[in-house]
Amino acid sequence: MTTQQLIDQIRIKKSFLAVGLDVDLNKIPQHLLALEDPIFEFNKAIIDATHDLAVAYKPNTAFYEAYGIKGWLSLQKTIHYINSTYPDIFTIADAKRGDIGNTSSMYAKAFFEDLNFDSVTVAPYMGKDSVEPFLAFENKHTIMLALTSNEGAFDFQTLNVDGKELYKQVLETSKTWKNSENLMYVVGATKAEYFTEIRKIVPDSFLLVPGVGAQGGSLSEVCKYGMNANVGLLINSSRAIIYASNGTDFVEKAREEALKMQQEMAAILA
Amino acid sequence: MTTQQLIDQIRIKKSFLAVGLDVDLNKIPQHLLALEDPIFEFNKAIIDATHDLAVAYKPNTAFYEAYGIKGWLSLQKTIHYINSTYPDIFTIADAKRGDIGNTSSMYAKAFFEDLNFDSVTVAPYMGKDSVEPFLAFENKHTIMLALTSNEGAFDFQTLNVDGKELYKQVLETSKTWKNSENLMYVVGATKAEYFTEIRKIVPDSFLLVPGVGAQGGSLSEVCKYGMNANVGLLINSSRAIIYASNGTDFVEKAREEALKMQQEMAAILA
Repeated sequence: MTTQQLIDQIRIKKSFLAVGLDVDLNKIPQHLLALEDPIFEFNKAIIDATHDLAVAYKPNTAFYEAYGIKGWLSLQKTIHYINSTYPDIFTIADAKRGDIGNTSSMYAKAFFEDLNFDSVTVAPYMGKDSVEPFLAFENKHTIMLALTSNEGAFDFQTLNVDGKELYKQVLETSKTWKNSENLMYVVGATKAEYFTEIRKIVPDSFLLVPGVGAQGGSLSEVCKYGMNANVGLLINSSRAIIYASNGTDFVEKAREEALKMQQEMAAILA
Repeated sequence: MTTQQLIDQIRIKKSFLAVGLDVDLNKIPQHLLALEDPIFEFNKAIIDATHDLAVAYKPNTAFYEAYGIKGWLSLQKTIHYINSTYPDIFTIADAKRGDIGNTSSMYAKAFFEDLNFDSVTVAPYMGKDSVEPFLAFENKHTIMLALTSNEGAFDFQTLNVDGKELYKQVLETSKTWKNSENLMYVVGATKAEYFTEIRKIVPDSFLLVPGVGAQGGSLSEVCKYGMNANVGLLINSSRAIIYASNGTDFVEKAREEALKMQQEMAAILA
């Protein structure tokens, strides 16, 4: 999917919501466990109930890898289901990969070719040659960690590097990489006051924003400081939507929560 | 496996060699492609030919993920084969994972429980709560990126943070984390002159050292500056061993290369 197509979808749906599919068998409605592939069935139900309210889905690979081959099958079925049923959806493999060049190429192949995701999250620590292999894919998007939503973000990301915080250096350096127009960035909603500074460095890039909801970030604050002329934000919500209920009404409750967020977003866009 | 058991194996085998299993179907002997699972058959042949010369095997997950479900099956068969046939081998999932706490717990479950690896590599960018979930596993080892072997290492890892390089700050901070005795670190052989400084910060920790061979690092230089009383080094070689030949003699050639490295190591240990 091109960036313009993503922007168009945001305008059509009046939504910049990404739904995180972090599926834990201990948290989903227990009646699904009798099915052959409970993770896929759960995802399918959530997607069918929210696809008109969300522009993106973001499976976190950890939750699939934890169940081994069965988990990878569920991931594969989920992405195939989205791509074949709702081709206008932007898909994000939240994998936080990154390695030396020839290895990153293999990761890019895994997520962009084998699984056919539109985007993948990557970690910046290994620098340019660990990220550029992802950037080489046309109409695919590489979402690099900048300032994350967790407590540990303050361990290294905000350290002072020659007069500026490390995450700012990461943003600035990444703009010099080949095909950097294919970069998006992860910026946590729990740090809304940082968005002003971030927008000075990457005014046009899309930002994937976790941390609204369960982690305490505010949607209106993020939009106030982080939105640009093309919206430029994908707000992720995982647990608040997918675990809104763990009973037989989980589909309705998930839709209710997604609708609340979409309506807030529509009001902000208006 | 405990750290003491690893040290014992190094003494018994007179080797601190880790063989990287980065299996690319384009590079393995083409006669294997007729088999049902060429990646596993290749790994099995390499492992059978080198298990007495190496103390560790390190499959890089990217090379398995790139082949989707089939690749994960090959990875699963490989780790099961090692664990059941050569239980004294230390196994490393080179996965470079790391995410917020509940997600890192799922990655830890994937590699330590589902696949039963002895260790996994992780990235430090997200800080303490992204690594501690791995450290919570007893007799499992978390190998964190410190100073990597690639060019991109100089993008961020060596930046000056309040008077010291970032990778040193990463090493120092990580020592304060819960169960930090379960940490090992990745330090590239291509930067041998840095080992002296690194040993001042982590004198007792094991270091996993890529970059000897194909990437140009020197074994003797690394040992001169990086070895401690318990050896404290695992030297990884991937391509130089596993792709020593792509003909029908690949097993013999791989053994020859591994033997050369083991003999160099035995001489250094003597």
